Amino acid sequence: MDTFPLLQVPLWIEVVAIAVGALAGAAGAVRQRFDLVGVLFVAVVMGLGGGVVRDVMLGLRPVAVTNQAYVLAALGAGLGAVVLLRVVTRFVRLFGLFDALALGLFVVVGVEKAVLNGAPFTGALLIGVVAGIGGGVTRDMISGLPVQVLRRGEWNAAAAALGAALFLLLRELGTPDLLRDLLAFAVIVLARYASPLFGWQTVEAGDL
Amino acid sequence: MDTFPLLQVPLWIEVVAIAVGALAGAAGAVRQRFDLVGVLFVAVVMGLGGGVVRDVMLGLRPVAVTNQAYVLAALGAGLGAVVLLRVVTRFVRLFGLFDALALGLFVVVGVEKAVLNGAPFTGALLIGVVAGIGGGVTRDMISGLPVQVLRRGEWNAAAAALGAALFLLLRELGTPDLLRDLLAFAVIVLARYASPLFGWQTVEAGDL
Amino acid sequence: MDTFPLLQVPLWIEVVAIAVGALAGAAGAVRQRFDLVGVLFVAVVMGLGGGVVRDVMLGLRPVAVTNQAYVLAALGAGLGAVVLLRVVTRFVRLFGLFDALALGLFVVVGVEKAVLNGAPFTGALLIGVVAGIGGGVTRDMISGLPVQVLRRGEWNAAAAALGAALFLLLRELGTPDLLRDLLAFAVIVLARYASPLFGWQTVEAGDL
Repeated sequence: MDTFPLLQVPLWIEVVAIAVGALAGAAGAVRQRFDLVGVLFVAVVMGLGGGVVRDVMLGLRPVAVTNQAYVLAALGAGLGAVVLLRVVTRFVRLFGLFDALALGLFVVVGVEKAVLNGAPFTGALLIGVVAGIGGGVTRDMISGLPVQVLRRGEWNAAAAALGAALFLLLRELGTPDLLRDLLAFAVIVLARYASPLFGWQTVEAGDL
Repeated sequence: MDTFPLLQVPLWIEVVAIAVGALAGAAGAVRQRFDLVGVLFVAVVMGLGGGVVRDVMLGLRPVAVTNQAYVLAALGAGLGAVVLLRVVTRFVRLFGLFDALALGLFVVVGVEKAVLNGAPFTGALLIGVVAGIGGGVTRDMISGLPVQVLRRGEWNAAAAALGAALFLLLRELGTPDLLRDLLAFAVIVLARYASPLFGWQTVEAGDL
Repeated sequence: MDTFPLLQVPLWIEVVAIAVGALAGAAGAVRQRFDLVGVLFVAVVMGLGGGVVRDVMLGLRPVAVTNQAYVLAALGAGLGAVVLLRVVTRFVRLFGLFDALALGLFVVVGVEKAVLNGAPFTGALLIGVVAGIGGGVTRDMISGLPVQVLRRGEWNAAAAALGAALFLLLRELGTPDLLRDLLAFAVIVLARYASPLFGWQTVEAGDL
């Protein structure tokens, strides 16, 4: 249960990731006509879920429990989504962008935290993917929706795995931290956001 | 993975909560025509699920693993529900009461344990809600039912959050432990049990 | 978060269990027409899921995170299932066998690891069942399939519980380790694999 205070991902990056993820989750929940508590619950699940699983898999007490900024960021973003509902529904395309940004942030933060806590290549890859898609998968399961990650179509787990692998390769090559983070983040956001726009699809395994 | 033996919630309260939760879970599973193993599995999930997640999020080894009373209470309540089936199906309204009592017990025990283990306000609130509804959400997902927590209608996560927040406020105000526990418990049970009787509904977020 | 290096289950047994579980998962995912990433994701979930939950419930950092052999075994088995697709689909009955072998391996390894880490009878039983069926339940939930464990019909959780209880009884009786492991494994595989062949069904709770 130790933490390594000198080796932490910066707090503000995690808080931004949580707020963006919670916003994407809450917006979807509003469109599904959940009640207020349900929307806030989905916001918390989307914003914090991946990080909680990440920390538990690293043997750490989840920061969402110990640091009040995390829950407040998720609840604030959830309330913001409800308040901004009418404005927000006009810009549906924006949600895809929020989704993509949250995925990129969650994966990069997750891989970085895994590496800082001593996980090897495959362990950090696993945690990066789980941190990235964990919140969304849980949200889909709780909401009774088909889990989008696994179906042919949009890049989601694929984008997360690609970005996490790139991060770890760049790290092996000694790329400066900021450049490495930005490149991995950009690849994830592009793969996730651009794929439906351009009709890129992942390949059905049976067609290989 | 330390425990704080002098700071524990009394064992008998947790065992009662587990038995009540397992009874509610098993009764629902019998009505869904699960087989015997399925009923006992649902009883264990409902009785122990929330507490396992609570302990893992606090960085503790789940008491359900270390203390044999927990699994035995859940299995005993599950078997009891099967044996009492014919009597039990006559009193369907009782299940709603069991559900409400279990929710109240799980939330109060969860918040208390979180506070005793050093969680701040939002962390204890998060753990209280998760401990309260975790078993039921898992049960619904495993059973292929729509997760009731999120839909407009009965108070569930809302009751849990309300009671957990009341507990933490009363604690800040220095209210005696027993009074604080009873008030939070009563508010949760009332909000959960009375809401369907009186037709109270939570508000759809889109209507705000 | 300590591990007990002298008290570990042999690595190769766990790797075999993971590969067999991942193969069973991937084969099912191919038949459901998931894309390549989805197939690999299901392979990882089926291969590693039960073990991750087992380790978290024991208060250990999951070995899947720390030891690269685990993720590689799951990914390798998943890729193997995709490559061997045409051969594999001819031998559909084989998947039932893989499923049964994986269940037996996961349960025996899970109970053994729980006992080595100080869990009492009921705790080890709980962890054995969860380790055995955890991957499959998660896979079903993620895939949007009804969770097979709970329905009347094939022995699954029942086989896991039976084998775990037998393991723990034989251990109390001082049965040699290898004999104990093989007997528990054989009972699980037989109960799981033979039940659909012979039409054995678990009993609906309402019929008792």
